[in-house]
Amino acid sequence: MARFAVLGAGRVGAVVAADLAREHEVLVVDARPEALERAQEAAPGRIATRRLQVGAPGVLESLADEADVLVGALASRVAHESLRRLLGRGARVIDVSFMAEDALALDGLARETGAVAWVDFGVAPGMSHLLAAHAAAGLERAERVEILVGGLPREPRPPFRYKAGFAPADVLEEYLRPARVVERGRVVERPALAERELVDFEGLGALEAALTDGLRSLVHAPLAPEMVEKTLRWPGHYELMLALREAGFLSAEPLDLGGGRAVRPLELAARLLEEAWSFAPGEEDLTVMRITVEGRRGGRSLRLVHEVLVGQDRERATTSMARATATPCALAARRLAEERDPEPGVHPPEELAALPGFVEWLLAEHERRGIRYRLREEQLG
Amino acid sequence: MARFAVLGAGRVGAVVAADLAREHEVLVVDARPEALERAQEAAPGRIATRRLQVGAPGVLESLADEADVLVGALASRVAHESLRRLLGRGARVIDVSFMAEDALALDGLARETGAVAWVDFGVAPGMSHLLAAHAAAGLERAERVEILVGGLPREPRPPFRYKAGFAPADVLEEYLRPARVVERGRVVERPALAERELVDFEGLGALEAALTDGLRSLVHAPLAPEMVEKTLRWPGHYELMLALREAGFLSAEPLDLGGGRAVRPLELAARLLEEAWSFAPGEEDLTVMRITVEGRRGGRSLRLVHEVLVGQDRERATTSMARATATPCALAARRLAEERDPEPGVHPPEELAALPGFVEWLLAEHERRGIRYRLREEQLG
Repeated sequence: MARFAVLGAGRVGAVVAADLAREHEVLVVDARPEALERAQEAAPGRIATRRLQVGAPGVLESLADEADVLVGALASRVAHESLRRLLGRGARVIDVSFMAEDALALDGLARETGAVAWVDFGVAPGMSHLLAAHAAAGLERAERVEILVGGLPREPRPPFRYKAGFAPADVLEEYLRPARVVERGRVVERPALAERELVDFEGLGALEAALTDGLRSLVHAPLAPEMVEKTLRWPGHYELMLALREAGFLSAEPLDLGGGRAVRPLELAARLLEEAWSFAPGEEDLTVMRITVEGRRGGRSLRLVHEVLVGQDRERATTSMARATATPCALAARRLAEERDPEPGVHPPEELAALPGFVEWLLAEHERRGIRYRLREEQLG
Repeated sequence: MARFAVLGAGRVGAVVAADLAREHEVLVVDARPEALERAQEAAPGRIATRRLQVGAPGVLESLADEADVLVGALASRVAHESLRRLLGRGARVIDVSFMAEDALALDGLARETGAVAWVDFGVAPGMSHLLAAHAAAGLERAERVEILVGGLPREPRPPFRYKAGFAPADVLEEYLRPARVVERGRVVERPALAERELVDFEGLGALEAALTDGLRSLVHAPLAPEMVEKTLRWPGHYELMLALREAGFLSAEPLDLGGGRAVRPLELAARLLEEAWSFAPGEEDLTVMRITVEGRRGGRSLRLVHEVLVGQDRERATTSMARATATPCALAARRLAEERDPEPGVHPPEELAALPGFVEWLLAEHERRGIRYRLREEQLG
């Protein structure tokens, strides 16, 4: 039995804690009493909670000494600094926080102290990168990697046909920031939401895929000379968002409305979409992902496709987004606790595909939890 | 030869002046020297101009004494007050200004002074109401009137597939204000843009029609127990605008953005659409109108359909909107100048359908100017 500390009792952190608490000691830390209460309710009697500000002096250092593995599921504004402090203390960390900063920049610090961080360990980034690397490693030569992933409402209700499991501002940021793709081995930028296409998914029908900047760490260590990441939405969503973007409704430039009043249209849009994009009571979400790796093996051209469709856990009232993200995180935390001598440093998921038996075990454990990643192999040409 | 004074040298006023100047003395009044210059260029040597503020004391009164007929083609903020002053002076006026106030409220004043105003005398309102009344008068019993009308760009360019010949704020107002329709002889309100449908137009294909509040004066004196007015747009436009409306981007309620900053989304939208909806250089516009009147005559059910499609006058670089609006106005001004004893008061176009020979003459004069209203008659049932 290992000791885990989960930092942040948000939607993802609470599910990670409940998962780990099946066999382990779990302490959940958050400054919000109501969040701690919700986390405890998810696994009554098996989760300890402590009301703490992770930013307060000594808090993280003392938690690092106490736990075998810490799980970072924090708000973006505190995530990077918290990780830095944990790594400075030599801790073992699984991180799934959304952070604008590059966690890999802390690699040197981690190596100095002997700390280990497996970062971006959710569904995408997370399983996306791990499975892409796993498939690529199974080929003699990987030629192309494509990651398609989206969090969606189960029902596409007009006008937006979209609901967001997190802040609209973060989604809008993805619709604006240029997407980095790999072409002939070189990183190039494309406008966000370019190269739209309809893609069929069994049981769902057509979704629309468009370029977003989701390759992240893969951009720096390409698995293949051609790599793209696209975000999936119900058809109709992108057309509307592109209309808004084109007309200036998503502009971050202050617009003068006269009388010395200026407003950033993007700020207003993020505010209005908070309501338009919030899930209605009882409205379910869905996570869809397809990772395609093409290449050659044994003189043949092959396509390896990993695909997953995660619904809501109605029994536990857990959203698909939280399940899909928390599950790999909780599993990786177990594995890191068991590692006798893990390599110090900050590691993105694709680096961990080589850990013996790791991917197979992750997929089997996902399946035990009702999340079934399917693999198919197609001959090409 | 009559003497006309055209108040306002905007896009419509300049075309009215040029039309009248073919046979008459025309004085154009505006406070903007560049607008006066443009108006003069439209008919060099045949138009006198005077730089005046119509709001300045005595200006309108003196013009009323000087001209046989005055044409109001003014900005909405000064239009109503100007009309009031002209009627107070006993003038004869054709008005085509866009005004939020009800011009018919000045009817009592006009009757007192013996003044005459034919108001709303553009294409719609204007020809729309006149032709509907004319068709209805040709039936023993009118049962249904439908006015479909739209100003459009000739090419439907995404995302909005729309360009505005005037201020976006006025267009947005039409997309928000409930539409009054007549049902079983009673006036009822419907949400703006409700009852959308695709309607085919020869040479154009399908346009989308949706309810707007365009019946105006016809609401108070219905021609038939069933009456609607719908605005025409290229398909796709309304869906986008309804998405904006539904998500709050067209709300007139101030929204708090924090830090004591509040903004009306509608104000921002109107500002952004000024650019998104402005015609590009060389981009042409189009005016489409279909007036359908159904009823009975000689024991039979009939449908009378007036239809017009007005393109740009490329030779004179006159927009379709300006031609379609200015032509009926200039023609009505001629007719009012010729009337020996016109009925005092404020008259909407539908009241003038009964003037002997007027409608036939209007249609013939439109045709001489390249604007062809076509009439077709269909047997029903």
